Amino acid sequence: MGQKLAALKERLGTISDINSSLAMISWDQETYMPPGAAKFRGYQLATLGRLSHELFTADETGTLLDAAAKEVKGLDYDSDDASLIRIVKRDYELARKLPSSLVAEFAQVTTAAKEAWKEAYHTSKFSTFQPHLEKVLALTIKKAEAYGYKDHIYDPLLDEYEPGMKTAHVSKIFSDLKPHLVSLVEQISERAPSDDSCIHLDFDEQAQLKFGNETIAEFGFDFKRGRQDLSHHPFCSGFTSDDVRLTTRVERDFLSPCLFGLFHECGHGLYEQGVRENLARTLLADGTSLGVHESQSRMWENIVGRSRGFWKFCYPKIQKAFPAQLKSLPMETFYRAINRVKPSLIRVEADEVTYNLHIMLRFELETQMVSGKIAVKDLPKLWNAKVEEYLGIKPSNDTEGVLQDIHWSMGGIGYFSTYALGNLMSAQLYERAQKDISGLGKQIESGKFDGLLSWLRKKIHVHGRKFTANELLERVTGEPLQSRSYLNYIKTKFSDIYGELD
Amino acid sequence: MGQKLAALKERLGTISDINSSLAMISWDQETYMPPGAAKFRGYQLATLGRLSHELFTADETGTLLDAAAKEVKGLDYDSDDASLIRIVKRDYELARKLPSSLVAEFAQVTTAAKEAWKEAYHTSKFSTFQPHLEKVLALTIKKAEAYGYKDHIYDPLLDEYEPGMKTAHVSKIFSDLKPHLVSLVEQISERAPSDDSCIHLDFDEQAQLKFGNETIAEFGFDFKRGRQDLSHHPFCSGFTSDDVRLTTRVERDFLSPCLFGLFHECGHGLYEQGVRENLARTLLADGTSLGVHESQSRMWENIVGRSRGFWKFCYPKIQKAFPAQLKSLPMETFYRAINRVKPSLIRVEADEVTYNLHIMLRFELETQMVSGKIAVKDLPKLWNAKVEEYLGIKPSNDTEGVLQDIHWSMGGIGYFSTYALGNLMSAQLYERAQKDISGLGKQIESGKFDGLLSWLRKKIHVHGRKFTANELLERVTGEPLQSRSYLNYIKTKFSDIYGELD
Repeated sequence: MGQKLAALKERLGTISDINSSLAMISWDQETYMPPGAAKFRGYQLATLGRLSHELFTADETGTLLDAAAKEVKGLDYDSDDASLIRIVKRDYELARKLPSSLVAEFAQVTTAAKEAWKEAYHTSKFSTFQPHLEKVLALTIKKAEAYGYKDHIYDPLLDEYEPGMKTAHVSKIFSDLKPHLVSLVEQISERAPSDDSCIHLDFDEQAQLKFGNETIAEFGFDFKRGRQDLSHHPFCSGFTSDDVRLTTRVERDFLSPCLFGLFHECGHGLYEQGVRENLARTLLADGTSLGVHESQSRMWENIVGRSRGFWKFCYPKIQKAFPAQLKSLPMETFYRAINRVKPSLIRVEADEVTYNLHIMLRFELETQMVSGKIAVKDLPKLWNAKVEEYLGIKPSNDTEGVLQDIHWSMGGIGYFSTYALGNLMSAQLYERAQKDISGLGKQIESGKFDGLLSWLRKKIHVHGRKFTANELLERVTGEPLQSRSYLNYIKTKFSDIYGELD
Repeated sequence: MGQKLAALKERLGTISDINSSLAMISWDQETYMPPGAAKFRGYQLATLGRLSHELFTADETGTLLDAAAKEVKGLDYDSDDASLIRIVKRDYELARKLPSSLVAEFAQVTTAAKEAWKEAYHTSKFSTFQPHLEKVLALTIKKAEAYGYKDHIYDPLLDEYEPGMKTAHVSKIFSDLKPHLVSLVEQISERAPSDDSCIHLDFDEQAQLKFGNETIAEFGFDFKRGRQDLSHHPFCSGFTSDDVRLTTRVERDFLSPCLFGLFHECGHGLYEQGVRENLARTLLADGTSLGVHESQSRMWENIVGRSRGFWKFCYPKIQKAFPAQLKSLPMETFYRAINRVKPSLIRVEADEVTYNLHIMLRFELETQMVSGKIAVKDLPKLWNAKVEEYLGIKPSNDTEGVLQDIHWSMGGIGYFSTYALGNLMSAQLYERAQKDISGLGKQIESGKFDGLLSWLRKKIHVHGRKFTANELLERVTGEPLQSRSYLNYIKTKFSDIYGELD
């Protein structure tokens, strides 16, 4: 290895170690930290974040990057070292574009906005949040301008979460898909609804956790290199590929949050555990984008975890875990319960058919907000109109409407679309997996998940952040992101449940 | 506040934040970290340790210290700011004395020595460990010389753990106390032994933890600013005074490890929780020395937790927690069981009478080793002779003898004596507390611990690292460390149990 590349890796190693320590103490904050410790934990997080940022954005990083770039000249685009230089250079240039005064102002404004949002949320009063969101928006626009863009001011905002993805591409995909989804929702709403009372019985919490963990261990989650704990908001945090923490929450009278929550976080966790060790301590040892990350969580949660094939294998097991509740219940009733489609006001409760419509609505409002086409004060009205148009229902207040998500208060404008992109990617990738892995359906029906996991490992996980989402999709499926696979998947699955859908 | 002092505090704040993050991820390593994560955790610990050390020992710290010293000139010795400069300057000068090559060599040698010790311990073969211990000793002597000393080469080694304490002082105290302890052990060995079978029954682990935690909450441990978890080796780690983690282990067939282990760690934890918030993020927000820390743990574990008065209050409670085992057992039998004195080969299993003899033996060997009076190869023989002389029993192999502790392999020469110093301090402080707090005995008999805790807070805890052990002892008790109080305490307590002792 060249001397400069070695020096660069040494530096990135230090930064990675700080980042993984930061992830570790953030995890503790959400899981075990005593309530009185928040103040000093805040200092620790801020200090580690600052040290990492200072080391990364220092001139020396740039000098090393340039010198190391010369050393790796001629290496394959795909090689670890060429990719390291390419990706880290991109990160570095972006990070240097934001003046530290803007970063500081952003932190200040969003801290206040988050508090205002909480109050607004609890009192359902958008006016409390409005002036704060206006400030967040103004700074977001400043940020986008600091990053710079060619086509759309929203591009650099999307790029923060989904590197390389363009607003025009997402707009096109969403507008192709939207009418189909709206129509599917309409059709399903007219059919007899599924009864989901069987997943709303009394389920012992410890038994739920035990069953969930046993199942994700069968998926391939390696508990020697990870663990599961409880937290208020479920998440997955991979400090390194050898230390991946999943969290979940459990509701005694509802199976889904723990069960499908664990499947979901396990999908994220499998991705993190699968990054090749060569990439450790390089800043590339992570998922490549939020969308691709979400494609993995959604694949295990929904495409596998809510499939009939999977439950052929798993239903006898869950019946054994909860005999009093499920012993005499036909599998089909359970299957329909976990796949009930019902337009709802709250995104996080949405099913596979309606979910993406919640995202499209947010994407449309965000792109119009940042390009100055709509004003913050008009958001509640615009929100409610879109909900009615897409889902056929109406929020009765802003807490069930525009105030339901915390993201904007934290400056996360550009984030939402990755949820839907992940859904689309999951279907596009799975469609290919079905072609590549002969008998995949049969494997899953018999509880064999290593065929799928090995395929995902090889195609996606090992690469870490080496390739962008579209690069990965093209390498694996032969085309960039599209919505066709997802629409096929949804139509096929729910036609089977609700009768032929169009 | 002066500008330079403010800048110094800012810098120390950053270092404190790194140190508390380091403590947090070390805690996780001992409690929740998945087994496969050790390798990268090692990198994280090393990186944070290096960053903290680099920031602290940088020239800039010295420059700020000197400039800030001018700003605080004229302030009281006792004031926070004068103390800050005094203590941090001491730390800084010491840290700068060690060449980084020596630190690196030390890390390398002790890593290998630890592995060799493990093997030697499991095979009871001192010769496996001997060459490694010789290297550790040689480097320890180099380290002592780098620090420099006036009277005894052991002084700077002791000073690392017990700032300001001198070898001559400790030698004098130990040699005064030793013949009395040896005589007490002899006398007690001739009397009828206590029966401790009542604490070796089957005790449900969860019930042990519940009872232990309820009791330390009554002592005053604040679970809003701390928590208890399980680990193989119990410890207390205070990241900040608002986040103090105790760990314990539980044996189903033995009450003491969990119960008295928790009392012990709680004593450490109360100290950490009691440091005044003004000292937060200054490097002074910690216990002032290992000895003073141990005085707090031993006070709650032994002087309070193993006293008859305490059990007058607590015995009905533990009977209620374990009715099958204790309901019909007289308190006196229980009291004698938890206070059984019996010479044993293993330090960590020793009682209040024999414990200090284990330490004196180590102290004598350490001081002779570093001053070249004895050779490493002769340690097993010398060890066994001392054990027989002090305790009247003989190790049958080196695992029960010279190999029993891991400390030397980690370079912890100078550490052991602080355990005994802590015992002596605990008695010296408690003797004073009895004079200062009227009716202290009655308070404890009725389960009122806030009198003692408030006194400890005010006299010891709030000061953090502002004063050395001897400074604290003189302020509180009017004299520096002595062994008289401990001997009185031991004689009185065990005469009452075993009949008049001389």
